[in-house]
Amino acid sequence: MVQAKYLTGDSAAINEFIDQFDVFLLDCDGVLWSGDHLFEGIPETLEMLRSRGKRVVFVTNNSTKSRPDYQKKLTAMGIPSNVEEIFASAYSSAIYISRILALPAPKNKVFVIGESGIESELRTENVPFIGGTDPALQRDMTPEDFKGLADGSLLDPDVGIVLAGLDFHINYLKLSLGFQYLQRGAKFLATNLDSTLPMNHTFFPGAGSISIPLIHMSGQQPTALGKPSQAMMDAIEGKFKLDRARTCMVGDRLNTDIQFGIEGKLGGTLAVLTGVSRKEDWEAEGAEVVPAHYVDTLSDLRGSTA
Amino acid sequence: MVQAKYLTGDSAAINEFIDQFDVFLLDCDGVLWSGDHLFEGIPETLEMLRSRGKRVVFVTNNSTKSRPDYQKKLTAMGIPSNVEEIFASAYSSAIYISRILALPAPKNKVFVIGESGIESELRTENVPFIGGTDPALQRDMTPEDFKGLADGSLLDPDVGIVLAGLDFHINYLKLSLGFQYLQRGAKFLATNLDSTLPMNHTFFPGAGSISIPLIHMSGQQPTALGKPSQAMMDAIEGKFKLDRARTCMVGDRLNTDIQFGIEGKLGGTLAVLTGVSRKEDWEAEGAEVVPAHYVDTLSDLRGSTA
Repeated sequence: MVQAKYLTGDSAAINEFIDQFDVFLLDCDGVLWSGDHLFEGIPETLEMLRSRGKRVVFVTNNSTKSRPDYQKKLTAMGIPSNVEEIFASAYSSAIYISRILALPAPKNKVFVIGESGIESELRTENVPFIGGTDPALQRDMTPEDFKGLADGSLLDPDVGIVLAGLDFHINYLKLSLGFQYLQRGAKFLATNLDSTLPMNHTFFPGAGSISIPLIHMSGQQPTALGKPSQAMMDAIEGKFKLDRARTCMVGDRLNTDIQFGIEGKLGGTLAVLTGVSRKEDWEAEGAEVVPAHYVDTLSDLRGSTA
Repeated sequence: MVQAKYLTGDSAAINEFIDQFDVFLLDCDGVLWSGDHLFEGIPETLEMLRSRGKRVVFVTNNSTKSRPDYQKKLTAMGIPSNVEEIFASAYSSAIYISRILALPAPKNKVFVIGESGIESELRTENVPFIGGTDPALQRDMTPEDFKGLADGSLLDPDVGIVLAGLDFHINYLKLSLGFQYLQRGAKFLATNLDSTLPMNHTFFPGAGSISIPLIHMSGQQPTALGKPSQAMMDAIEGKFKLDRARTCMVGDRLNTDIQFGIEGKLGGTLAVLTGVSRKEDWEAEGAEVVPAHYVDTLSDLRGSTA
């Protein structure tokens, strides 16, 4: 049975661990902060990693924010970063659409269910889209809508992709449109499939709870572009030209972050105990996802310099 | 292997078939009409059944209409009926809540996700409720909503039940409220679980696509009060004091109507070929749901008097 190695307080082991990697992929919520609370020593820990020549990449399933939006959040939390170090699921989706799917125009238009972060990233990649935050969709269905969706007159014939992410303005009209496009053969993508969104110490509907009606109606599973989907890992690898053997995934959730790193055949995975998963989760009989290493908190990595 | 007996054109068999039953439970869409098109001979067929002393009950999963609303629809389609002959899933849900669940007041309040039909039926059964068509819920979530839902200050402590049906005004706020009530221990009911709603010769999101995000988030399955759920059959039996052995379910869908009759141990099931299911569906190798009898169209039952 694989056992997770505990690093906290063992400076020799920490040094050896850090030396194994060139790149650290960092989950954010539960690793760097919780809600609005930045964990102690995080900026210093990131600075230590950078000073040792490590590249850090912030990898988040948050689909409502573009990379510049997310950088503002990092800055507000007191974490120095640049846009190029950020990899969020909206961006992941945009580059998957433009560079990997690469459908021929004009049938490459995206029907978006989601917020402005997705729209910004699609714009940056020059991907045409409709839907999203368009105020024309913020309304009730009319009898004419039912008719126009059924006969296709209200549908854009160039839509070849439905992309669903977290949408705080989800409604019956958007679900109906998404389903009609899928029925007509559009490819089905999702920024990520998290069923819930942790906020204010409780949970709200996540991106996966926005796309699940479309999955239920169509019987189709979307390609997901967030953790633990390997489509996101492929996109990260493509962008950063990283050596997977010299890359470590750091996160607080076994079934997203750690699974993402293991399935991606990265050189390492590091779990932190400041978020969702507990040590007992991977020490349990039959645990399927076991991190290679773990620390109490990310800033324990500074123990190497003690 | 069970074989379905074909009755069309065989007047002796039709007579014998009709004589076996006192009550006919009739699905509507696909049996009596399709969309706005009433099938030929339907009013005369119902008149024939009534003249032979049979009770007819219109059984529908439509959750947006109260029984009086539905009677208006039957009248508009040219079908004479009275309210007491109608059994729709909103009504089924209301009597399940008031007579079977019968939670003690004041913790018997229902949070409704759905349309006015559900509200009317709950009112008729004197069940307290919130949500539903309340215009105060027709809006975007605010940061204060996230906070108030998390700390419970925006939740009604008397809500003991979440009832989800087809809601053309579904939004993020309603899904968040429903989930918070479930998290706090409310019982989870659904008028019905049909993933799609057939309209205008295509499909739109059905009641089951409104409740699926709550199922996905909570990991709980609701008790469904529509076909093929036996909770609906129990409610029908309780109301009409029917003898199941002398009752026949008539419908066009194997996996809702016919399954409903078979699992309910009714004396008979009759499939019609004017709707969704085809003869090939139950004649296929390994078909799990096979009607006892079938006709091309319901009005073929008039063949008994020919």
